[in-house]
Amino acid sequence: MQVPSPSMREAASMYGTAVAVFLVILVAALQSSAPPESPFPYRISLDPEGSLELSWNVSYTQETIYFQLLVQELKAGVLFGMSDRGELENADLVVLWTDGDNAYFGDAWSDQWGQIHLDSQQDYQLLQVQRTPEGLCLLFKRPFGTCDPKDYLIEDGTVHLVYGILEEPFGSLEAINTSGLQTGLQRVQLLKPNISVPALPSDMHSMEIHTPDILIPGQKTTYWCHITELPDGFSRHHIVMYEPIVTKGNEALVHHMEVFQCTAQFESFPQFSGPCDSKMKPDHLNYCRHVLAAWALGAKAFYYPEEAGLAFGGPGSSRYLRLEVHYHNPLKIQGRRDSSGIRLYYTATLRRFDAGIMELGLVYTPVMAIPPQETAFVLTGYCTDKCTQLALPPSGIHIFASQLHTHLTGRKVVTVLARDGREREVVNRDDHYSPHFQEIRMLKKIVSVQPGDVLITSCTYNTGDRKLATVGGFGILEEMCVNYVHYYPQTQLELCKSAVDPGFLQKYFHLVNRFNEEEVCTCPQASVPKQFASVPWNSFSRDVLRALYGFAPISMHCNKSSAVRFQGEWNRQPLPKIISKLEEPTPRCPASRVQSPTSPTVVSIGGSKS
Amino acid sequence: MQVPSPSMREAASMYGTAVAVFLVILVAALQSSAPPESPFPYRISLDPEGSLELSWNVSYTQETIYFQLLVQELKAGVLFGMSDRGELENADLVVLWTDGDNAYFGDAWSDQWGQIHLDSQQDYQLLQVQRTPEGLCLLFKRPFGTCDPKDYLIEDGTVHLVYGILEEPFGSLEAINTSGLQTGLQRVQLLKPNISVPALPSDMHSMEIHTPDILIPGQKTTYWCHITELPDGFSRHHIVMYEPIVTKGNEALVHHMEVFQCTAQFESFPQFSGPCDSKMKPDHLNYCRHVLAAWALGAKAFYYPEEAGLAFGGPGSSRYLRLEVHYHNPLKIQGRRDSSGIRLYYTATLRRFDAGIMELGLVYTPVMAIPPQETAFVLTGYCTDKCTQLALPPSGIHIFASQLHTHLTGRKVVTVLARDGREREVVNRDDHYSPHFQEIRMLKKIVSVQPGDVLITSCTYNTGDRKLATVGGFGILEEMCVNYVHYYPQTQLELCKSAVDPGFLQKYFHLVNRFNEEEVCTCPQASVPKQFASVPWNSFSRDVLRALYGFAPISMHCNKSSAVRFQGEWNRQPLPKIISKLEEPTPRCPASRVQSPTSPTVVSIGGSKS
Repeated sequence: MQVPSPSMREAASMYGTAVAVFLVILVAALQSSAPPESPFPYRISLDPEGSLELSWNVSYTQETIYFQLLVQELKAGVLFGMSDRGELENADLVVLWTDGDNAYFGDAWSDQWGQIHLDSQQDYQLLQVQRTPEGLCLLFKRPFGTCDPKDYLIEDGTVHLVYGILEEPFGSLEAINTSGLQTGLQRVQLLKPNISVPALPSDMHSMEIHTPDILIPGQKTTYWCHITELPDGFSRHHIVMYEPIVTKGNEALVHHMEVFQCTAQFESFPQFSGPCDSKMKPDHLNYCRHVLAAWALGAKAFYYPEEAGLAFGGPGSSRYLRLEVHYHNPLKIQGRRDSSGIRLYYTATLRRFDAGIMELGLVYTPVMAIPPQETAFVLTGYCTDKCTQLALPPSGIHIFASQLHTHLTGRKVVTVLARDGREREVVNRDDHYSPHFQEIRMLKKIVSVQPGDVLITSCTYNTGDRKLATVGGFGILEEMCVNYVHYYPQTQLELCKSAVDPGFLQKYFHLVNRFNEEEVCTCPQASVPKQFASVPWNSFSRDVLRALYGFAPISMHCNKSSAVRFQGEWNRQPLPKIISKLEEPTPRCPASRVQSPTSPTVVSIGGSKS
Repeated sequence: MQVPSPSMREAASMYGTAVAVFLVILVAALQSSAPPESPFPYRISLDPEGSLELSWNVSYTQETIYFQLLVQELKAGVLFGMSDRGELENADLVVLWTDGDNAYFGDAWSDQWGQIHLDSQQDYQLLQVQRTPEGLCLLFKRPFGTCDPKDYLIEDGTVHLVYGILEEPFGSLEAINTSGLQTGLQRVQLLKPNISVPALPSDMHSMEIHTPDILIPGQKTTYWCHITELPDGFSRHHIVMYEPIVTKGNEALVHHMEVFQCTAQFESFPQFSGPCDSKMKPDHLNYCRHVLAAWALGAKAFYYPEEAGLAFGGPGSSRYLRLEVHYHNPLKIQGRRDSSGIRLYYTATLRRFDAGIMELGLVYTPVMAIPPQETAFVLTGYCTDKCTQLALPPSGIHIFASQLHTHLTGRKVVTVLARDGREREVVNRDDHYSPHFQEIRMLKKIVSVQPGDVLITSCTYNTGDRKLATVGGFGILEEMCVNYVHYYPQTQLELCKSAVDPGFLQKYFHLVNRFNEEEVCTCPQASVPKQFASVPWNSFSRDVLRALYGFAPISMHCNKSSAVRFQGEWNRQPLPKIISKLEEPTPRCPASRVQSPTSPTVVSIGGSKS
């Protein structure tokens, strides 16, 4: 009965013998497998020099991504892959490497020490290898989910792409450790929604908001602020789409850009073009915070739905705009000039609906806090049925885009819509959220919110590097949990957020005090941040804080603007009761893996040293 | 790029077209694939009539189970499979069915409504179909884990096997719903440890403890108590093995059997043979609780390790034994006679070590309680470093077997050994534990416990059908969390268990009281069960109780017998600090699935109506 078969140990060293039985598939043979007909609509530079260029396309019917990796100057190989947060350890990798004689392509993974191993299941499938004038071009595909426990599951939201350059041949795949390589990461939304482009009006005009041929500072991070203004007497228009303008050659440096409209409360704003943290920057510019357009690396043009546009211009709105460009220049390249920005497309023929932006999540208040040394602490903000009942029109609103926002410790954000106590659908979810990559994302499917619906926004934080509690607030070391949803028709509701009832938080401080029998100052006369700072953080005080946030009544901000509430009682509101939760998405395994090879493929890359 | 491929909907109805492309594999062809050489060491009746007999063998090198299912009188087909707790919904099934013309064998699953679907991945592999004089004999195999999300993961511990009888042909697999069938469940440990049989002494004798040809009552559940005695002047011996004696024909009725030794504190015990709950049963029999041997359905002979034996007989030990046989007779079969029991093998040549039994887990006290309506509430009991330091010999003890025990709401039990604050290994784990199936199980690997080690026993309870808190205690509606570990060399330590400090529990009642601002009687003068009965169970009181048990100091029972403690301070002991936990076992996928067919197999079963 004990039929011999590879033991675990043998399987682990499978690579050693596998090289002997490589399927020798030549480039010619690879080319015969049908390459996809259409070009790759999405493109990004992986490294700051732009020597590794990734293009991709998504097939939702196949649940597969087609990748094209262009390696400008191949040395001895390249790694490409994905990991939870951009680390090179525990990464899902595809590796092109040479041993001096042959070149190989294989699906691999790195362990917690960065050492590379061949996957037992080869899910990255090489389709084509081609030498082009631009460099070596690899075409391969991978299903979103593979059911190989060593593989990354490609989900909606942010994906942390990683890469590494092999400078010299390696005798075997196992000889490679990522720690010795030139490596890097790039964040991107791989699963772009496949929405058809809405029809555009015939009387559409465009306007470029861009930096005035500036010199990019030779430092790692620059936020550039540039003030510009709309033409005198510019009447009310609808923005119907916008797209990035990135100066050629700077694709790897321009990280994200936003256009803000200034407040109408000041007649005029001073001219300025310089780093946003410059001492020369006029204080007034802090009043330019109403988002008109936002773009981040890897994003394409943003289209408003056909029936809606974002109003700007006309009476009651400021003529002044602020462009903010984030230059990410880790190699501190000097002397690069740039005129990047955003091109707005707008029409005077106003569309049926004004689009609006609403803030969901948590009020900016210290009563919502995260204990230190937590790796996945969740805070949740509610937009209650009472508020949507009061503030939304009878026919509801339609959310078509969303921008998630936290400060530095945010790791995941999700907003779910609940109706009649049951979670119904996800508005937007990012399980690999990074505060360094905050795009406005079109939703794959418009989400309609009816009066009486509840919107629940949860953020997961990692405070592993903090010594004290992290409280809610505006400061960069404080936290936020916000989803800016873009919707139509515009309503008066601008903020629909919550925080725990402050009286119940005082009960918490009292009971922690009593339970620990220590003389700590969590007395009510101290400020909430001070009370949190003196909590003795043990498993009990952590668990009870979590229990408090999951139980205590909330204060609602159901506001027309940040200061004006809708009428009603908004304090000590009950937490929305949720009787059924959405199921966690279970990864679908590819229907058939019968064709997938179980060993690396020998490839001819033309430039191999053999 | 959007290469056509089956959509989800198409895949879901795959079966419809799959029948057209069945691989017609004839019996002859199947027989040519090498059948395992050795017989099947494990055997069990699935149904109470004994018309479905399952035999199996385990290949640990292949991580595969070979099953042989004997169907005495095949009607139109049979289902066999596994599910979390024996339900026919959400079950992993293998189905043999006929459509009137052909017979098919396929890997399938049932959804939450009991409807059957074909698995996209066929992991049960049919090896042989044979008509024998006894019935139709199906031979098939399955890996422990398949990585198909619809498949059950075969783990150590209890497995709930399920079966169903198809009385008539079905046009398609999807037409079958388990709710309309004659079905049932059988609990078994599938992954028996493959331990070689220890050498037995040449001077071994045996003694049968069995019921005296009784009439099995025609009721669903009977616990039969039978008193017997050791020969006069029976000196001290070592039990070195024991095995079940099951009266032929009653294999499906005899569920479990235990032999207990009575206490030495009474000179003699009255004769008795009858149902344990009989009014005629002498009260004295409650003092016969020292386990000498225990067997449950599906278990084979139990062997003590070569260096140890269980002492019985001789001075200071009672001559009286109590045999308890649990008859499970759901069909209420009448008139069946039975003489089942246990055959003890013993030697007068005492082995080097006496074996001992130690109780780990929770003290039987109401301070450990489970709120009502919890589906997976965990309670944990500790055997602390301080106790093992004091009570274990310098060379430690060796645990070779374990019997897990809870009352009715227990669903999982696990004991983990920790050393220097790090969890090191699992002593015994059952993630599908059932209080109706409490076997003594040999460990796959002997676990050595050193002085200073910590043993952590956690039980998971489901109180979904309870209205009030379930407190710890002896009553059948109260709960226990115990692991009886069998070890050698015997020590004085009989009990190493814990419970939360009662003072901290009073703090809990106080704070829940205060937090809810309700006038509930959780006042300290009430008994703990009454205090628990008046807790208002909301998310906060539940979470805080969980937090309390995870934080508050414990009272230790580090006892020589149930009443005599080792010397030392055992109250208000700190909870053991665990800085690193064992990783959850990740299911290993079979190395290669390339050969597995993706559609059902047409089989010739001889008796098909075609």
